[in-house]
Amino acid sequence: MDFLKRQRLLRKELEVRKVDALIVTHLPNVRYISGFTGSAGVLLVAARSIFFTDGRYAEPAAVQVKGARISIAKVGALSAAAAACIRLRLRRVAIEAEYLTVAQLRGLQQALGKSVKLIPLSGEVEALRAIKDAEEIALIRNAVEVSSRLFNPLLRALHPGVAETDAAARLEFLARKEGAEGMSFETIVASGSRSALPHGVASAAPLPSEGFVVLDYGIVLGGYCSDMTRTVHLGRAPAKAREFYAAVLDSQLAAISAVHPGVATGEVDQAARRELKRAKLDRYFTHSTGHGVGLEIHEMPRLAAKNQAILRPGMVVTIEPGAYLPGKYGVRIEDMLLVTETGYEVLTPVSKALIELN
Amino acid sequence: MDFLKRQRLLRKELEVRKVDALIVTHLPNVRYISGFTGSAGVLLVAARSIFFTDGRYAEPAAVQVKGARISIAKVGALSAAAAACIRLRLRRVAIEAEYLTVAQLRGLQQALGKSVKLIPLSGEVEALRAIKDAEEIALIRNAVEVSSRLFNPLLRALHPGVAETDAAARLEFLARKEGAEGMSFETIVASGSRSALPHGVASAAPLPSEGFVVLDYGIVLGGYCSDMTRTVHLGRAPAKAREFYAAVLDSQLAAISAVHPGVATGEVDQAARRELKRAKLDRYFTHSTGHGVGLEIHEMPRLAAKNQAILRPGMVVTIEPGAYLPGKYGVRIEDMLLVTETGYEVLTPVSKALIELN
Repeated sequence: MDFLKRQRLLRKELEVRKVDALIVTHLPNVRYISGFTGSAGVLLVAARSIFFTDGRYAEPAAVQVKGARISIAKVGALSAAAAACIRLRLRRVAIEAEYLTVAQLRGLQQALGKSVKLIPLSGEVEALRAIKDAEEIALIRNAVEVSSRLFNPLLRALHPGVAETDAAARLEFLARKEGAEGMSFETIVASGSRSALPHGVASAAPLPSEGFVVLDYGIVLGGYCSDMTRTVHLGRAPAKAREFYAAVLDSQLAAISAVHPGVATGEVDQAARRELKRAKLDRYFTHSTGHGVGLEIHEMPRLAAKNQAILRPGMVVTIEPGAYLPGKYGVRIEDMLLVTETGYEVLTPVSKALIELN
Repeated sequence: MDFLKRQRLLRKELEVRKVDALIVTHLPNVRYISGFTGSAGVLLVAARSIFFTDGRYAEPAAVQVKGARISIAKVGALSAAAAACIRLRLRRVAIEAEYLTVAQLRGLQQALGKSVKLIPLSGEVEALRAIKDAEEIALIRNAVEVSSRLFNPLLRALHPGVAETDAAARLEFLARKEGAEGMSFETIVASGSRSALPHGVASAAPLPSEGFVVLDYGIVLGGYCSDMTRTVHLGRAPAKAREFYAAVLDSQLAAISAVHPGVATGEVDQAARRELKRAKLDRYFTHSTGHGVGLEIHEMPRLAAKNQAILRPGMVVTIEPGAYLPGKYGVRIEDMLLVTETGYEVLTPVSKALIELN
């Protein structure tokens, strides 16, 4: 990863904002800018960068961190960063308003006194992260491919009477065996009427002999997340259920077709809703159409109603409309896409034809 | 769980602080006070409580939330809570300063205008959570017992040449099969010189034929976390390594003996350090002695140098000193303890005699 380039781009942004430095506290941002993968550290990006962490991470930081001096703080990484701001006579120091807590802000204000002005910024690093470079795209491709390979073994774990969590356990074991650091979110295995829960994490419920099962999962591999959803049917699907599935799939395909550089994300969301409206199911689509994916499972851009963010080449997003009939059943279908110069590439190589398991 | 009692206790605290309400945004706190287990929701605790969430969680909220009216917000749960503050003519509204972000604070300030004063509070709900009730202790006991049962199967997965992540995968699979929602933190399997990393999450490194392996893991079961560490030795441990292990074990036992209601947590930390000092290893103990465990893996109280928090019956804490020789090896031993009226109970039923695996 070209951490020095990222720091250069970030410094340019900071110049535009007329700030001397940014205190990066959100760990995925720290990782993106410096390479540090641990769970405690603060990066001060000034004319030069300094990375602050505690004794536990002295060794990993020495190996991982690029483009920044490493300082092992005894007083807490954020306090050490504040002390450095004073030492370096910085005047205007930005903080990450979306992540710094009110308590941290007060601590900084006390430590810095009146000589340093704290400037709240939002989304500076996140905007850089939204456009993936070639190395990141390769890592994301790999995470998507590995998790897609787990789909058929997961299907083989689905039998009436098996607990949803047992199916999830099987999936997660195979993911770990493939080298995943972990799952990118709590695995969703939502069967029968639970499929109508848009966020039905695997429960102790046994799989029924008939009905939809929403399978929504992702892995973290090489630091990057994958995310996919397929909805399969246990037993033969009744005609109504097949129509319902087809309507959601049409919606997903319509949204995919709308993905193009220069298009507002809200338009993609609109395309998904328009198609569901034709089937009179739009009011059962109760969440947004998708989100960016990278070091975090949810990152920029959001693909939601009226969202004005513009799709750019190098963005990686999910397209995941769904429809949920409360108490009955639900269907969601989700792929990951790369926005290209000329349109899009669907990254998820798994069929979306309705699968009926016997 | 007696959510209504928790709300009563919290309201009393809020009266003492002379605030009309608390906007609870930290999800484990929301869960503790209302029962909601999902990933998006805000609880307004006023004379009556209102829980705000989005459409995805309408159904689970209706089942889970106790003692609060449920409001499905279209504008975002926090904005809806702000609107309710105005509607209810609240004057002094507390926020969770340790969790509310600077951006959220600004959003609230804008929505509320000058008629509502925002009061930053810290640790109100956390202080209640630090003292576990009987139902919570039963859940924690269960999580500890289930994770302890996984220790022997984990040992059987440890063979020279096996990747650390494969051993972790085995453990995590078994945890899921036992019903765990997931692991309470990224599993640490740190072998050979990696055992000297105080936070050595399982890597692709193959287990060596000889040397220490630090095994630090926990599960989440019924919402509650467990946490344990054992350090075992692959092959026969040399005399030096055995002495090193014995010194850490002495330190851990000394810290356990210091646990008693009324004692400051800093004294427990001191007991661990004193014992390591006798073996001239205190400077290799680079982290704190322990932490509370409950709905979160790290919660109040902290057991760290000079910490003044007082141990109380019903607290559940880890005791986990370690010593790490950089580049060589490290040892950590960790149990969970319940602070009782008369002293303590060690919850973790796993032997701490040095295990040598052949």
